[in-house]
Amino acid sequence: MNNLKGIAASAGIAIARAFTLEHPDYSVTEKQVTDTDAELAKLDAALAQSQAELEAIKARTLQELGEKKAEIFESHLLILNDPELIEPVKSKIASESVNAEYALNETATQFIQMFENMKSAYLQERAADMRDVTKRILKHLLGLNYVSPSEISEEVIVVAEDLTPSDTAQLNRNYVKGFTTNIGGRTSHSAIMARSLEIPAVVGTKNVLSAVQNGDLIIVDGLEGDVIVNPTEAIVEQYRAKQDAYAKQVEEWKKLRSEPTVSKDGIHVELAANIGTPNDVAGVLENGGEAVGLYRTEFLYMGRDKLPSEEIQYVAYKSVLEKMEGKPVVVRTLDIGGDKELPYLDLPKEMNPFLGFRAVRLCLDRQDIFRTQLRALLRASVHGNLRIMFPMIATLGEFREAKALLEEEKAKLISEGIPVSEEIQLGIMVEIPSTAVLADQFAKEVDFFSIGTNDLIQYTMAADRMNERVAYLYQPYNPAILRLVKMVIDAAHREGRWVGMCGEMAGDATAIPILLGLGLDEFSMSATSILPARSQIGKLSRSDMQALAAKALEMGTAEEVVALVESIEAAAE
Amino acid sequence: MNNLKGIAASAGIAIARAFTLEHPDYSVTEKQVTDTDAELAKLDAALAQSQAELEAIKARTLQELGEKKAEIFESHLLILNDPELIEPVKSKIASESVNAEYALNETATQFIQMFENMKSAYLQERAADMRDVTKRILKHLLGLNYVSPSEISEEVIVVAEDLTPSDTAQLNRNYVKGFTTNIGGRTSHSAIMARSLEIPAVVGTKNVLSAVQNGDLIIVDGLEGDVIVNPTEAIVEQYRAKQDAYAKQVEEWKKLRSEPTVSKDGIHVELAANIGTPNDVAGVLENGGEAVGLYRTEFLYMGRDKLPSEEIQYVAYKSVLEKMEGKPVVVRTLDIGGDKELPYLDLPKEMNPFLGFRAVRLCLDRQDIFRTQLRALLRASVHGNLRIMFPMIATLGEFREAKALLEEEKAKLISEGIPVSEEIQLGIMVEIPSTAVLADQFAKEVDFFSIGTNDLIQYTMAADRMNERVAYLYQPYNPAILRLVKMVIDAAHREGRWVGMCGEMAGDATAIPILLGLGLDEFSMSATSILPARSQIGKLSRSDMQALAAKALEMGTAEEVVALVESIEAAAE
Repeated sequence: MNNLKGIAASAGIAIARAFTLEHPDYSVTEKQVTDTDAELAKLDAALAQSQAELEAIKARTLQELGEKKAEIFESHLLILNDPELIEPVKSKIASESVNAEYALNETATQFIQMFENMKSAYLQERAADMRDVTKRILKHLLGLNYVSPSEISEEVIVVAEDLTPSDTAQLNRNYVKGFTTNIGGRTSHSAIMARSLEIPAVVGTKNVLSAVQNGDLIIVDGLEGDVIVNPTEAIVEQYRAKQDAYAKQVEEWKKLRSEPTVSKDGIHVELAANIGTPNDVAGVLENGGEAVGLYRTEFLYMGRDKLPSEEIQYVAYKSVLEKMEGKPVVVRTLDIGGDKELPYLDLPKEMNPFLGFRAVRLCLDRQDIFRTQLRALLRASVHGNLRIMFPMIATLGEFREAKALLEEEKAKLISEGIPVSEEIQLGIMVEIPSTAVLADQFAKEVDFFSIGTNDLIQYTMAADRMNERVAYLYQPYNPAILRLVKMVIDAAHREGRWVGMCGEMAGDATAIPILLGLGLDEFSMSATSILPARSQIGKLSRSDMQALAAKALEMGTAEEVVALVESIEAAAE
Repeated sequence: MNNLKGIAASAGIAIARAFTLEHPDYSVTEKQVTDTDAELAKLDAALAQSQAELEAIKARTLQELGEKKAEIFESHLLILNDPELIEPVKSKIASESVNAEYALNETATQFIQMFENMKSAYLQERAADMRDVTKRILKHLLGLNYVSPSEISEEVIVVAEDLTPSDTAQLNRNYVKGFTTNIGGRTSHSAIMARSLEIPAVVGTKNVLSAVQNGDLIIVDGLEGDVIVNPTEAIVEQYRAKQDAYAKQVEEWKKLRSEPTVSKDGIHVELAANIGTPNDVAGVLENGGEAVGLYRTEFLYMGRDKLPSEEIQYVAYKSVLEKMEGKPVVVRTLDIGGDKELPYLDLPKEMNPFLGFRAVRLCLDRQDIFRTQLRALLRASVHGNLRIMFPMIATLGEFREAKALLEEEKAKLISEGIPVSEEIQLGIMVEIPSTAVLADQFAKEVDFFSIGTNDLIQYTMAADRMNERVAYLYQPYNPAILRLVKMVIDAAHREGRWVGMCGEMAGDATAIPILLGLGLDEFSMSATSILPARSQIGKLSRSDMQALAAKALEMGTAEEVVALVESIEAAAE
């Protein structure tokens, strides 16, 4: 038995066999062969095995996940049977007397590079498909014993160095009971994904991938951040009990679904959810969300080969507004750039993309893109309770410019006879230190603030939140961060504005008591965090938390703040 | 005649012919030749021309710049005559019947790659030399009409897209009367270099390189930020008069060299200089510097193939302290990483180096490097008035850790019987927003603060100061920046600490009135800015500036702050 400590990234307990997600070594070397017929036969066998595998996966995907998801495997089968790929491989084996894997790799690489060099998102996707198919054939040629994550067909816990978006897209979610990774933190992709899938996850363990063998029984405790490798029977029993207790707790939370969020001393705050697509609204309502506090519109722009039209956007915004049935929906305008790229925009590479040309900076420059989004939002505004916010605002000048464009588009629509709501609130993300420090000036001109802590922390501490070497500086509880949050809330309240928070911190059990004490009005989080947060807030008195927050603001370090919060929790138990 | 507007980066007026620094096209294509003897003769001719050129440059450099600077051309001559390079080129021409430039380029590229792949700084330098020599031979083979900046032999103004450190290292400084570039701002390398060479510069003109032909007469007005291309006689006369007036002004300033810096209402502040090497101290004293406010120790670590020993560092620190004759010297410990790399440390590439593993973050991890520097500093401390400061401090924890290491090394030295000063002040750079916001907590533990505005602005605005696309966000006068500066000064003064500023802002004529009003104690700048700043401060009343600063803090935008300062200047005239 072996215990590892990591970061509790998604609540719950998973107990299952480990599926180690490792990227196998597909490298090939050129060999001269004397028996080319044997090589050709080897190739045929590998093609047949690949064909059988793909057909099985396609059938299973069709049944379990639907037609759309199965399409990708249909494309793979087409490539596998494409004579334009296979014939050159065969003739290379025959004419150059080389081994099959070398001939395949050389030929496929040529195609892939050709596709990649063309500036078409369609062909770039073809390149990705061809790479997948080539790997599959190579796997058989090289005799690699490797199961792709898309082929998982029993309940497992995925163990990986890290999970990229493309890894998680491939996972067969029906069978994945938990994640655990070497790297990452609460805001990493894998953590956010685990919370949205509602499966337990422990990230940032540093070495789980080397501590675990494929097939080992492991326990992932996403409540405490523990991973137990090859537990004893007794330990498994203990965790089954913990799992049951957690399930009961979840049932308890569910009773709060239609309740308002009220502190012990009767202060109401709003618990909202962060979403990425209209499909996420179902989860918001199921988890008792009172609003959408952050609708990230980037997904509308990703996974396509050109900008989404006004109509496509309008349909999406309208859908979210309608599904929320009059509850507030805060839509953030396009926040692209930084770590989120759009290939078809062909933006220049930057030395420090997090400090670069992104979000509203890009939108003020590429007004064509921005105006289309603003029009779609304005048109959708009559279908619900729309609030618009601009990301990455650093100066009042930027806000004024963006607001002027919104007003121009609104005037145009009205003159075209298209109805626009007169009730749209207009706010900004506070995620850049300058804006937090100058919040009193902004508060005179905006309707609301939403504090984006993920970026605010990274800029305030000057530490890339994706960079493992400076991960120790990602400190939500640093008193400097708390002071900036207080500046924003106080400045807003003096002008009668409300303040939300849509970073990961808003759903964090250690931060919630302090945020309640600082006077935060709206907490926007992963939908699955809403009910636990509602339960927690119901047990806290805001006036006590005000005293707690006042103490936290005068501390020197994040560690002291955490100790303070833990001391009141211990006292309450 | 054509006028361009840029950023006034270094004061003064230059009038001279333009030298356009463009990188010529050395690309070669393979050609089959029938007359290989003719190709061999072409090669010999190019080698002979290169030889003659290099000998002339070497002789001139020896005479004008001394033996050390001439050594590089001696190395080039050795490469040019190295049969290991030249023989393979000749045999390639003969055996493959290819053109000389192709044969040379192929052969040299092989050597260069081989050198570069070896992890030796020595061989990497050889690779750079071989690349220079290859370009020189290619220039003759391709008949390119190009003068290298190292061969400038008449008075010119250098016109370039941008000037990299390697460009400026190559410039023959005796003949360069001014710079003007397309990109860059007041804190770019070319601007800082121009101020240290005391030559006028206008940067960030956007298009001077396309507006100017090599040999055009141009005027660079580093006072106003103007570049005039092909001026009329009358304009030249006008600028000659301006040049004379500026020279007289400079003479006036020189009279202030031994004077203290006192405002009109009798408040004394300290004007200090930023330096990079012991050689810079002469300029500090010549310009009446009262202290060294920032000694950047990075140069000790650059341009070598391993870490500098304790002894090398000790000699440098002692030299600066002794030359300053008891005046304060603030030494910043190693600030490497970010845009400053050390090849021999072999640090991993980062996605956002400005938000990465640099400065004190690296030093706390690589304690071997840090302790060596601390020991050298402690040993040198008895030779003058040493102050030590740590860069990139984001948390109190980091400061405490760094201070503990300093105290450990001090205790060790004392136990070894080596004398250490008991008067060393210990401070930090305030260049990360968290530290500015939490300055009251830091002020209880540090002896002084030095505000590093270049980085503080970049992090507070979340805008890479090297990235042209977000250059509009580099706003020293943004009220948010002024408020952070005020927080630091007020917090320090409450605890009886002093506050300096060592970013470019400290020497900026628009910022100085506000900084005086905010109560800044020490202004550290390019040595050449000290006398103009002393003259300016002498004409300002601090109590008036306090009122000015109070107004500036309540403004919404940087533009409003600039207009405010200009209005009081206009009133004073």
